Amino acid sequence: MSILIKNVLHHGKKTDVLIEKNRFAKISPRLEAPADKVINGEGKAIVPAFYNTHCHAAMSILRGYGDDKPLFAWLREDIWPIEARLTAADIYTASRLAVLEMIKSGTVFFADMYFFAEETMRAVKEMGIRAAVSLVEMDMFDPAQTTAKIAATKDFLAAENPCPERIVKGLSCHSVYTVSAELLEYASRTAADNNLFMQIHVSETAAENAECVEKYGVTPTARLDSFGLLTNKTMLAHAVHLSAADTETIRARGSFLSHNPVSNLKLNSGLFAFADLYAAMPDKITIGTDGASSNNNLSMIESVKTASLAAKLQAGSAVAGKAAEVYRAATVNGAAAFGLDAGEIREGALADCLLINMNHPFMVPAYNLVSDLVYAADSACITDVICDGRPVMENGHVDGEEEIVADARQLAEKILSL
Amino acid sequence: MSILIKNVLHHGKKTDVLIEKNRFAKISPRLEAPADKVINGEGKAIVPAFYNTHCHAAMSILRGYGDDKPLFAWLREDIWPIEARLTAADIYTASRLAVLEMIKSGTVFFADMYFFAEETMRAVKEMGIRAAVSLVEMDMFDPAQTTAKIAATKDFLAAENPCPERIVKGLSCHSVYTVSAELLEYASRTAADNNLFMQIHVSETAAENAECVEKYGVTPTARLDSFGLLTNKTMLAHAVHLSAADTETIRARGSFLSHNPVSNLKLNSGLFAFADLYAAMPDKITIGTDGASSNNNLSMIESVKTASLAAKLQAGSAVAGKAAEVYRAATVNGAAAFGLDAGEIREGALADCLLINMNHPFMVPAYNLVSDLVYAADSACITDVICDGRPVMENGHVDGEEEIVADARQLAEKILSL
Repeated sequence: MSILIKNVLHHGKKTDVLIEKNRFAKISPRLEAPADKVINGEGKAIVPAFYNTHCHAAMSILRGYGDDKPLFAWLREDIWPIEARLTAADIYTASRLAVLEMIKSGTVFFADMYFFAEETMRAVKEMGIRAAVSLVEMDMFDPAQTTAKIAATKDFLAAENPCPERIVKGLSCHSVYTVSAELLEYASRTAADNNLFMQIHVSETAAENAECVEKYGVTPTARLDSFGLLTNKTMLAHAVHLSAADTETIRARGSFLSHNPVSNLKLNSGLFAFADLYAAMPDKITIGTDGASSNNNLSMIESVKTASLAAKLQAGSAVAGKAAEVYRAATVNGAAAFGLDAGEIREGALADCLLINMNHPFMVPAYNLVSDLVYAADSACITDVICDGRPVMENGHVDGEEEIVADARQLAEKILSL
Repeated sequence: MSILIKNVLHHGKKTDVLIEKNRFAKISPRLEAPADKVINGEGKAIVPAFYNTHCHAAMSILRGYGDDKPLFAWLREDIWPIEARLTAADIYTASRLAVLEMIKSGTVFFADMYFFAEETMRAVKEMGIRAAVSLVEMDMFDPAQTTAKIAATKDFLAAENPCPERIVKGLSCHSVYTVSAELLEYASRTAADNNLFMQIHVSETAAENAECVEKYGVTPTARLDSFGLLTNKTMLAHAVHLSAADTETIRARGSFLSHNPVSNLKLNSGLFAFADLYAAMPDKITIGTDGASSNNNLSMIESVKTASLAAKLQAGSAVAGKAAEVYRAATVNGAAAFGLDAGEIREGALADCLLINMNHPFMVPAYNLVSDLVYAADSACITDVICDGRPVMENGHVDGEEEIVADARQLAEKILSL
């Protein structure tokens, strides 16, 4: 398939963009190439799509269920009892809802950590975006669960990838407080043997750090490092409470950080040290939404603004967390973290992009596109989303969205009756 | 004019809503009243519109101009030189852009503080929303300016209100650090004599407090109170750095607070003590966007979420700044502050409302409407806006929006050439 986008704004100038197969083939004014599909880009800008580096996608089905409660009461009373009863089919329905809201808000990739990962892959394959999907390793230090998790992971990794062109299978360890040494070691060895991406929650709360130091005498980062879990294919989610030594370890290993600004504020986890961490490793800072249960949406275009605002507060400076920095984190850095040659509108790069309605008042007068995207825009400004050279949203509409929403409503009724 | 909205969700149940003239006349299932206009509410919810209690609307034309710079460098190098050269016609063009973005994001009222207020009134009248408009009193302690401001204010107040049904004229004092005792006294006396609403920036930054204490020996709140400027018609904007005594004074006087969460974070002003202040005076806490230059949009649906997130951080508790609290602040409290019997969908109340697309994935599965509006929705979920019994946005479209955007672009070109 080829797509020709005519008269679209790119770096402030009107140009044409030719997509061939899944890459940007040519970016130049007045292209006269034949194409299977022509998109009129008049009044629109072409910009990178977003790459969401930490998500529990299927939790969108629990959006707004038991909000404004203390974290553990909410997990114990509301979330865990429901999660325990969700079926594989439910996770498929819920993942479709999540992918739909991601597309609507400009996201073409997410790194996921949840149960029934094969169902999330099915949703991603059908809906045309990208994902790094993993089963979540979590045994609560129970040897029976360790054995079960290892067996499940072997099955997961052995099964055929339903969509290798857009989905990568990896591993995730939930955290140092939920995963035994045996399972951490298995995960580390398996990742190394198979060259897998790894996702881990780290230092999300001060309590996590305190418990880890008490139990093991080291910080969560140091503990993970002692198992060889910090590599340049590791994505550390949250990382709110890092010591200077932790930061140096992470930098030395070339690991990535997924900053989840909305979740950290909503759950009162603390403030990510964006300015210092970005200064230390500008290529390694990425942005995620976390699950909808602790956000309560999967909008990266909202999260970039919150990341910037939180960075200014954390650093005590209105010039911290600059628009261009959080934007880079949410686009090219997030893509690079999972090995994608994407996140930029550039000849040869993977053809992922958004078209932005420059006539939306949030985008007017348009002195500075990146500033407007970060500080002024919301998802209403996004009209089209292209992923891997194929349109997944056109003029605000996603194929099949009515059915996805209807199915999600039906599942919610079941959840309410559980 | 009468409007009948059929089959719309209200408090979770499908109902019909009849608007006669500018009020909700009847809310009941299966209404068979004749109406000039029938709106199909299928798949939508009817909810209150937003009331923005602190704005400098025309600054939308400076959106994104010189971002990510320190506050005073930005004001001195970027903003003030341009503001000094804006004409009355420019303020009209800029105000229309601001009103357009407010309508698109669900706002039907704003309290404004800027120059050429008569031009802002013209835009508001034409576009069908509400405003409390004031000339900004600011003399920089220069007696010549004091005299000029008093003369200008007399003219402003003497001139006919072009739209008394939707616009109220009031006064504003910029702040204790920009307004002389003479002008504060004039403003206080004039407000009292004419029963006017008053808007004042107070304790926005720690520096403002320190300077005020050094110069006058009292806090900004105490200084304003000594001039009789704190009444139950006073809106105090920002109020980030209040002492316990300040809070008690404000509570005793019945004044209102306008919390501007995005601006406070973007300019690194500090954190508003939402939880404590809401507990002390739940009817008096309202929400504003500030001008687009320090935000950079006028989206109240974004500001309510930021208000909640900032409240949790400030209080150190995930249950602070509950969805229902920030939502009340942004709707019924904001309306009441300016004497409007509005901000609720209730028979007899002024007919201001939004229709929300309940099929947008952010609004699914819909366990809790207020939680979803605050934590999940953005402006893309709003399809229709009604103000004072008349539609100002229908299915996402505002009459004349193309011309407003074109005019704003032309003005921006002039600004860039200044």
